[in-house]
Amino acid sequence: MTYRAPLKDMLFAINELAGLDAISQLPGFEEATADTAQAVLEEAAKFTEQVIAPLNRTGDIEPSSWKDGAVTTTPGFKDAFRQFGEGGWQGVLHPQEFGGQGLPKLIATACNEMLNSANLSFALCPLLTDGAIEALLTAGSDAQRQAYLPRLISGQWTGTMNLTEPQAGSDLAAVRTRAEPQGDGTYKLFGTKIFITYGEHDMAENIVHLVLARTPNAPEGVKGISLFIVPKFLVNEDGSLGARNDVHCVSIEHKLGIKASPTAVLQFGDHGGAIGTLVGEENRGLEYMFIMMNAARFSVGMQGIAVSERAYQQAVAYARERVQSRPVDGSARQAVTIIHHPDVKRMLMTMRALTEGARALAYVGAAACDIAHQHPDEAVRRENQAFYEFLVPVIKGWSTELSIDVTSLGVQVHGGMGFIEETGAAQHYRDARILPIYEGTTAIQANDLVGRKTVRDGGAVARGICARIAETEAALAAHGGAPFAAMQAQLAKGRAALEQAIDFIVTNGKTDPNAAFAGSVPYLKLCGIVFSGWQLGRAMLAADARRAEDPAFHEAKIATAHFFAEHVLSQAGGIRDAIVSGAPAALALSEAQF
Amino acid sequence: MTYRAPLKDMLFAINELAGLDAISQLPGFEEATADTAQAVLEEAAKFTEQVIAPLNRTGDIEPSSWKDGAVTTTPGFKDAFRQFGEGGWQGVLHPQEFGGQGLPKLIATACNEMLNSANLSFALCPLLTDGAIEALLTAGSDAQRQAYLPRLISGQWTGTMNLTEPQAGSDLAAVRTRAEPQGDGTYKLFGTKIFITYGEHDMAENIVHLVLARTPNAPEGVKGISLFIVPKFLVNEDGSLGARNDVHCVSIEHKLGIKASPTAVLQFGDHGGAIGTLVGEENRGLEYMFIMMNAARFSVGMQGIAVSERAYQQAVAYARERVQSRPVDGSARQAVTIIHHPDVKRMLMTMRALTEGARALAYVGAAACDIAHQHPDEAVRRENQAFYEFLVPVIKGWSTELSIDVTSLGVQVHGGMGFIEETGAAQHYRDARILPIYEGTTAIQANDLVGRKTVRDGGAVARGICARIAETEAALAAHGGAPFAAMQAQLAKGRAALEQAIDFIVTNGKTDPNAAFAGSVPYLKLCGIVFSGWQLGRAMLAADARRAEDPAFHEAKIATAHFFAEHVLSQAGGIRDAIVSGAPAALALSEAQF
Repeated sequence: MTYRAPLKDMLFAINELAGLDAISQLPGFEEATADTAQAVLEEAAKFTEQVIAPLNRTGDIEPSSWKDGAVTTTPGFKDAFRQFGEGGWQGVLHPQEFGGQGLPKLIATACNEMLNSANLSFALCPLLTDGAIEALLTAGSDAQRQAYLPRLISGQWTGTMNLTEPQAGSDLAAVRTRAEPQGDGTYKLFGTKIFITYGEHDMAENIVHLVLARTPNAPEGVKGISLFIVPKFLVNEDGSLGARNDVHCVSIEHKLGIKASPTAVLQFGDHGGAIGTLVGEENRGLEYMFIMMNAARFSVGMQGIAVSERAYQQAVAYARERVQSRPVDGSARQAVTIIHHPDVKRMLMTMRALTEGARALAYVGAAACDIAHQHPDEAVRRENQAFYEFLVPVIKGWSTELSIDVTSLGVQVHGGMGFIEETGAAQHYRDARILPIYEGTTAIQANDLVGRKTVRDGGAVARGICARIAETEAALAAHGGAPFAAMQAQLAKGRAALEQAIDFIVTNGKTDPNAAFAGSVPYLKLCGIVFSGWQLGRAMLAADARRAEDPAFHEAKIATAHFFAEHVLSQAGGIRDAIVSGAPAALALSEAQF
Repeated sequence: MTYRAPLKDMLFAINELAGLDAISQLPGFEEATADTAQAVLEEAAKFTEQVIAPLNRTGDIEPSSWKDGAVTTTPGFKDAFRQFGEGGWQGVLHPQEFGGQGLPKLIATACNEMLNSANLSFALCPLLTDGAIEALLTAGSDAQRQAYLPRLISGQWTGTMNLTEPQAGSDLAAVRTRAEPQGDGTYKLFGTKIFITYGEHDMAENIVHLVLARTPNAPEGVKGISLFIVPKFLVNEDGSLGARNDVHCVSIEHKLGIKASPTAVLQFGDHGGAIGTLVGEENRGLEYMFIMMNAARFSVGMQGIAVSERAYQQAVAYARERVQSRPVDGSARQAVTIIHHPDVKRMLMTMRALTEGARALAYVGAAACDIAHQHPDEAVRRENQAFYEFLVPVIKGWSTELSIDVTSLGVQVHGGMGFIEETGAAQHYRDARILPIYEGTTAIQANDLVGRKTVRDGGAVARGICARIAETEAALAAHGGAPFAAMQAQLAKGRAALEQAIDFIVTNGKTDPNAAFAGSVPYLKLCGIVFSGWQLGRAMLAADARRAEDPAFHEAKIATAHFFAEHVLSQAGGIRDAIVSGAPAALALSEAQF
């Protein structure tokens, strides 16, 4: 078994930290009880462990390949995707009205974590399809929803997001793809899109491309972008497939990792025009795309957690088997398994603490999203929506940045064997490297966090979170005991550092934007560290309350949080310095001086 | 041009920080003046930029390959290695008596940096050959030195180090290879060695394997290991090549990076015994191997700096070309090259500051090694030897660990293009990943730093370095000006943190070794950060003194050091916390709890 879903850890985060109990009392989520969560997670574990995880290495060795415009996916993927659709896994969080299960994002998030731990490359296809579903739910016409959603949710068809063009990476203002109205309600699209994940493949009957393009006379910049559905095969009124549309995959990329996932260059309209229909209103494409992107960004954050978990499991397994060197404390005369060496423990604890901290934060974020959608009280909805939106760039940026460190440690634990491809540790290290880049680089997330999420409201939401953190500090202080005191002390220092950073960002955001944005990524990391530490502080308290039920498990939770406090939260002061004092030096060099 | 040797930066480090002037006054180094250094470096730059660097990507695409026991290296490597030998580059620091140039390690270090920046895979062959030369110089008999050294130094033959066996990674006590005396002064060796860099290849006429093995009745553990020369082809008395020896390459590894460098599994004695001769005395093999390893560890540290420099140059070049998004300060209405965006500057400055700091420290270490060898005053020699030996694990561990971060940032600066293999940024990220592993993992370096270098002398050498740092702080304080004051403040905090860490390590090293060693890698990193910061503090002062000669260059030096102070040195306090308070949590989990 190359992957075992950490069900107990997931259920702990779901029940004790994210508060599934409260979610299941919201209208529409009545069935989402702890029992349901456990049952769904157990099924997801079986499927991902047995069907999906074994294909991970296969995909690395036999990547998707391109020939004459067609993409053949890794052997086994097509059948696995059929099982994925038939199992209802695409629909976990989507409306029952269109064939989904209508479960909370909180439960779906755990399922997604498993799918991604099992196989990042495979999971990308559902991830993008989720985005397309989300966009159509939000902005699609009734006809579009009826035509596309049931088939996307059943896994018969898949979806893509087409934003990037060769001249416009993260800068959507530079999008040039044209959409010309045909007078019959359809448009013809012309242009080139790059980096389109699962832009072409053989796992589904149809591919539903959601494409950003400009209509004639649209305003310049991001205000002139519209969103279109351009299916690979046109869809007849009765839902059957029609003619092949004029969108073609001209190549796929040769990548560092996630090799099984085809990254396509798509050419629209080289043979007369790709037929598409407008989603929602003209020139509001960016707004709709942001809805998809927020969901996708959260999901990419989960990918960071997922690959970290997988790398951790593999490192632990190796450290339990590999015998080398006597213990430094002289407690054995023979060589021991390396899990007994202090630095190996430190590395494994680092991997574990970062992963658990990020998971706790992400699951809490998912619950906030559920409350923001379903709570009867508008004020509660608004508050949770603001909290969730603040967290999204943090979850995306922090969870993916740490996945680089965690997968790198995974290689390191293996020593020389880690550098040999057959071992598999290196694949996680290569796969993870895309995560801080796609769906908006860490800098793009950090710009969002600084600009839209912190400066715009004068730091109100950010400071509100700090106030909640202070409450957890008080609870820790009231508790007593060394690990709890250590967490309280480091969390208090971390929160104080974050508050200073917030002040700096808010003060400089408008008057000296270069200074504020020079600290944007450190600010994002500081949020990630302090928020994760906060959640692990809560986890300590919850674990202590339940200690007797399962001492070994709950004591490990407390120790992991304690480790996070001393080894990760302790970094907060240094990062604060970099934000508050680091801008002049960061900005000092002219282009020629580099 | 994919690589341009940073000659001005190198010469600044050589002359202003490492003090070549004083080195050239040592007996034997009279010719090693600043002019000589400049001339040698300029020649090395031409050769590495024009001949070696273009082969870097070739080696990634067309790695060395194995067939029927023979290894064919990447196209172009054989001819390049011939030019390398003919140019005298293998002999830069080796004695003139055997055909070398007899230059200081300080100058050779800059040449090695260039070779490694140009091509890590290629440079490994000379790196291992250097180790073999070093071992024979130290412990070889006259006959062995005459037979092997001239041909190793000329590049006709190459050398290897054979330590690792399948059951014994870093744990040399577990070496099982046997050496049976034949009564004629030779031995027959039997055993399997793995991870042998350039263990087989087609670039030289002969390969000189230096092999750790046990003689019959040798004591158990590391005290029973002897060192043998086992040439691929036996060497006749007249120096001509004799019969093929019984050492055979049975496979090479499929690796994450440095793919052009063949990593061999060598089988000794499958056809009657591989004939070898003893180096030095029986059972002193580990001692000799440590001489080679210290040189090799320093060189691997230089590899970290070298690949960081190369990744930095590539990232700067991309950031100067790639146009995307308008500036956040509204200073332009059009999209600009990304080098103008604050976070891109921050990333490039991080890459630059880490690389410059590590280079400064390594060059200062090389100079200490030169003084330790050549100074007429024994007390000075001893002091410099102790300083150098303290630095070796820091230079090896810190420079290679940071190369992971720097090459990762190099990918990140490229955005999505960084994940595409054709771009080349990903290769540096893959190549660098071996550096914290081979020649002793970071944990092995840190064990050495804690055990042999800090605890053994009660922290005397470590505290002596801190006292020298305090002198630099005083000079910075006397100077005035914001960047100098910032460096003084962060350096003082960093040194204080390091002193607390030294106290902790010394106090616990013997009484609670698990606690001391749980903090060993953080301690190594803390040394790396504080020592590099110290050297950059010195660099600021030197640059200011020479500012008028070349303002743009020297002001960039000051800004880079300032950046290091605020963004890197500022991490010291957090790392101190992890060392001093982090052990209980690091060690808390039992094997089953992971």
